[in-house]
Amino acid sequence: MAMTRGATSSLGDGQIARLRELAAQLRVDSIRSSTAAGSGHPTSSLSAADLLAVLIARHLRYDWSTPDNPANDHLIFSKGHASPLLYSVFKAVGVVSDDELVNAYRRFGSRLEGHPTPVLPWVDVATGSLGQGLPVGVGVALAGKYLDRAPFHVWALCGDSEMTEGSMWEALDKGGFYGLGNLTAVVDVNRLGQRGPTELQWDLEAYWRRVEAFGWRAAVVDGHDLRAIDEAFAQARQADRPTAVLARTVKGKGVPEVEDQPDWHGKPLPADMADRAVAALGGVRQLQVAGPMPQPVSPAARSAAAEPVTLPRYGKGEKVATRKAYGDALVALGSRPDVVVLDGEVGNSTYSDEFATAYPDRFFEIFIAEQQLVAAAVGLQVRDYRPFASTFAAFFSRAYDFVRMSGISRANIRLSGSHAGVEIGADGPSQMGLEDLAEMRAVNGSTVLYPSDAVSCVALVAEMADRQGVNYIRTTRGAYPVLYDNGESFPVGGSKQLRGSDHDDVTLVGAGVTVHNCLAAADHLAKDGLRVRVIDLYSVKPIDRPALLDAAHTGDGRLVIVEDHYPEGGIGEAVLHALAGEPLQPIHLAVRGLPASGTPTEQMDAAGIGVNAVIEAARALTRR
Amino acid sequence: MAMTRGATSSLGDGQIARLRELAAQLRVDSIRSSTAAGSGHPTSSLSAADLLAVLIARHLRYDWSTPDNPANDHLIFSKGHASPLLYSVFKAVGVVSDDELVNAYRRFGSRLEGHPTPVLPWVDVATGSLGQGLPVGVGVALAGKYLDRAPFHVWALCGDSEMTEGSMWEALDKGGFYGLGNLTAVVDVNRLGQRGPTELQWDLEAYWRRVEAFGWRAAVVDGHDLRAIDEAFAQARQADRPTAVLARTVKGKGVPEVEDQPDWHGKPLPADMADRAVAALGGVRQLQVAGPMPQPVSPAARSAAAEPVTLPRYGKGEKVATRKAYGDALVALGSRPDVVVLDGEVGNSTYSDEFATAYPDRFFEIFIAEQQLVAAAVGLQVRDYRPFASTFAAFFSRAYDFVRMSGISRANIRLSGSHAGVEIGADGPSQMGLEDLAEMRAVNGSTVLYPSDAVSCVALVAEMADRQGVNYIRTTRGAYPVLYDNGESFPVGGSKQLRGSDHDDVTLVGAGVTVHNCLAAADHLAKDGLRVRVIDLYSVKPIDRPALLDAAHTGDGRLVIVEDHYPEGGIGEAVLHALAGEPLQPIHLAVRGLPASGTPTEQMDAAGIGVNAVIEAARALTRR
Repeated sequence: MAMTRGATSSLGDGQIARLRELAAQLRVDSIRSSTAAGSGHPTSSLSAADLLAVLIARHLRYDWSTPDNPANDHLIFSKGHASPLLYSVFKAVGVVSDDELVNAYRRFGSRLEGHPTPVLPWVDVATGSLGQGLPVGVGVALAGKYLDRAPFHVWALCGDSEMTEGSMWEALDKGGFYGLGNLTAVVDVNRLGQRGPTELQWDLEAYWRRVEAFGWRAAVVDGHDLRAIDEAFAQARQADRPTAVLARTVKGKGVPEVEDQPDWHGKPLPADMADRAVAALGGVRQLQVAGPMPQPVSPAARSAAAEPVTLPRYGKGEKVATRKAYGDALVALGSRPDVVVLDGEVGNSTYSDEFATAYPDRFFEIFIAEQQLVAAAVGLQVRDYRPFASTFAAFFSRAYDFVRMSGISRANIRLSGSHAGVEIGADGPSQMGLEDLAEMRAVNGSTVLYPSDAVSCVALVAEMADRQGVNYIRTTRGAYPVLYDNGESFPVGGSKQLRGSDHDDVTLVGAGVTVHNCLAAADHLAKDGLRVRVIDLYSVKPIDRPALLDAAHTGDGRLVIVEDHYPEGGIGEAVLHALAGEPLQPIHLAVRGLPASGTPTEQMDAAGIGVNAVIEAARALTRR
Repeated sequence: MAMTRGATSSLGDGQIARLRELAAQLRVDSIRSSTAAGSGHPTSSLSAADLLAVLIARHLRYDWSTPDNPANDHLIFSKGHASPLLYSVFKAVGVVSDDELVNAYRRFGSRLEGHPTPVLPWVDVATGSLGQGLPVGVGVALAGKYLDRAPFHVWALCGDSEMTEGSMWEALDKGGFYGLGNLTAVVDVNRLGQRGPTELQWDLEAYWRRVEAFGWRAAVVDGHDLRAIDEAFAQARQADRPTAVLARTVKGKGVPEVEDQPDWHGKPLPADMADRAVAALGGVRQLQVAGPMPQPVSPAARSAAAEPVTLPRYGKGEKVATRKAYGDALVALGSRPDVVVLDGEVGNSTYSDEFATAYPDRFFEIFIAEQQLVAAAVGLQVRDYRPFASTFAAFFSRAYDFVRMSGISRANIRLSGSHAGVEIGADGPSQMGLEDLAEMRAVNGSTVLYPSDAVSCVALVAEMADRQGVNYIRTTRGAYPVLYDNGESFPVGGSKQLRGSDHDDVTLVGAGVTVHNCLAAADHLAKDGLRVRVIDLYSVKPIDRPALLDAAHTGDGRLVIVEDHYPEGGIGEAVLHALAGEPLQPIHLAVRGLPASGTPTEQMDAAGIGVNAVIEAARALTRR
């Protein structure tokens, strides 16, 4: 392990003095803002102030007047709790006023939230759940290197505590694999976590070995040595591999009373102490720094006019798995140069491999690393691509914190979970998505879709492409008959009535595979003279309340709701919630208990969501 | 990187010949079982057959007649899809018959499921979601080294594809940090994943560097060289650090038609090919192997009689945060030697640090690695400890796949999520658990608790200690008045009526912090002459249907349900589901949209779950 010493830094003494002033201002402002707010993380900001001073004054190529400039570098605070430092940077570059910084930070209604979110135009993504900023940075860097082919650089400020999150090593692994020389992780090794020393404390050599083993350049610096930092950042920008600048820093640096003290995490300095500290740091400053500007870039290839999308067509009655239709739809959407696809090494199961074959330049194999899978999608949408990421429905549970944070990031992403429910058959419960609808429905602003056939699937995938927020589509492993005519419309928030009249006795509500069970049950019940309505609830969120209401009113409230999911948080509860207050006679069929192996039919019958269970439920309701 | 060559193996030629026969049997049986089932992963089994032959015949100290023997080694198939190999091992050691292996594997009703689950007494935990077996193994090894102080060894068979899961690096990190010399990861580097080559393929040196950098011994072997494997396993058992045996293997080894071929993942051999392969491998065998037996261990310390648990007491009206009460309760439960506590480096926020101070030997700091946090809990309960694992409610989303799999593992674990909801105030949405109830309710067999005060909190924590399954308790950041008398009983599945009579006009249903809002609202409404019932729904799952039903019947169905959670999958839907079919006039107050920063009161008011919102909802219902 060699230390970067700053020998090649071009910084003269005058520049050093100005950088010191800037760093002092960042420290002072981090203290003032958090003390005024009465909460926040000043000590975690102080440790990284020198790093940020050098970065913004000398290396971050950013036109602060046009945050959407595609040539801008990207600055991601993976350690989002250092928001006082980030907002102090925003003051120093002139986009946030001193008044706002001190009087609005963490206040109700303020855009200067406790942890950064993209309500600020210079913030790409929400951080604050540790271990997410660097993985998202990988996605942004993938866009820069492979799609935009633009010279922007991605800088992620990381905490040492978050280096124990596996997601950071997914990011390091992928950064190395994809040779992301346009990505730098600046690791603020201040030795102290929330409740005491970190695992590796100041063992920089251990970090160095790990990072190098994952294919990165590691540059070890004294994080308070401005020339060394400058040299490390300059080299990072030139590298053809990603760089981790491992900076040995002191938590609370600049305020001797709290420097390297364990009990000062997440605590503002009391007012008297803050006054002393600010005075000792030379008082309040109103310096403005103008860092380097980005080089203009030519418009990206994707701005070329997209070819029209022609969705695949299927024969009615033909048996096609919706996962297959998903892959087909991706290929059709591939005519749009902003559509990119990612998969977690199961592309031959999710059928995203069809896109990989057709458009290899816009397909990213993330291997088995679902957190990085979602994070990369989030990073790609930062650069305005339309990512579709797929794996088994069950395995998005691995990335649920990333999905949750995507909602807070106002990210526009599209997720496809295949192999939903007990229908998958023999592989058993570890591979069955049985909680995914609950997960995805609970995400702020999410859309949850669950098509029953290939025609509705391709229509919904096309709908997703331009939709805001977290969009989830659930697909089925097995092949079932095509129910709809090609070209039929499937608006998000709608539903389809597949059987029924104005005088139905009972309504069967299904989605995905259970629509087919409902249809078979309805046909059987019709022979008994029962008038049965069947609703294909392909849009689970938003939900088609008018159609459900009409069904409830028509059939005296008799509803059989059938889902291949656990009873909690899925379609049954969504329907009951939509119809809250209406007189209902509902029966909710869902998977209860633990399935094992078996054929799809055995599994659905055993779970009580098969054709016979639906028939019996409808009969029970109409016998009442 | 040095290869282990087998020079010190004591294996004679006769022994080698017998091991070869055993390995051939494991291969033959892996082929037969999967071909008969028509599904499964034979090629992923063939690559590891030599590793398992040497392990079970020579190194795994296991009394197959007493799987609950505390001295037994532990064998965890982290690559759970290699279940044909595991079940072939079970045949070879005589606990599963040839008939069951061939005729029951993956069939409906069989215990030989597609991926292993603990319905088999020799299986500790369910695997099949990759990247989980090794982290659970860390938990079992923690129990062995620090609690049982028993000489058992934990062997985890890992796939190379799963080495891209961050959770594996959390496990490697923690294995190194805790110096788990009783843990060996056997990595089957067969170069091929599901849909093609792995990231690192046969770059054993890259694996070696990474594993060593994480503090493990790495032993690189030819995974088909029996003497080298034998030597590596013998050295692993002696090591004072954890060992990763990095085995270069060939996928499909032993069946030339499929060896190292990319398109044979997860596919059984067709019958004719299987017949040829079995014949070439020397045909069906019925060898029985007797491996080494464990050394008897003295009864663990925890079997000593526990001191009685005396729960902490609080003064009624005293303001105490339920997270603080959680910590207090843990200390009280610490008198039971089977209670162990883990935290994700936020013990001074979750108050688990009180236990860490009182019982440092039974506290494990997992640092910021929530997947490993839950996995360690699962591993500890394998050895019959009662783990309580805590972090912020929001951050269990990071470990949701592990929680989900805990349900499939029939694991008995206890999770505590603090900082629930918008009530946390200034830190903002990244730190707010707003989806955790939906997550946790959807887990099979789970219990979800949400106390409103300190007395109910400590009672529920005590209840959790002996409860089966995944038990989740949600705690609140802020301090609120104690509502109950010390010693009051809070059965799981119950609720409390805090205000009301037999003639109520409306019922307010809250849980946790919203109970306090409901009480304030009720007192206000009482002044208007409204008869208001308040229910503290401290048990969200199972739910107190009789109490809710009574409330609905009494108040003409007028219910205001208030929760500090997103509307989907939480308390509102739980109540609606419990009362499905009942005539209701419900108003559901929940968090909608994205909160920012603010005080707890500002946040709750803005989200529409504060006192005024409850008052208005109750008035709206009673005005109808």
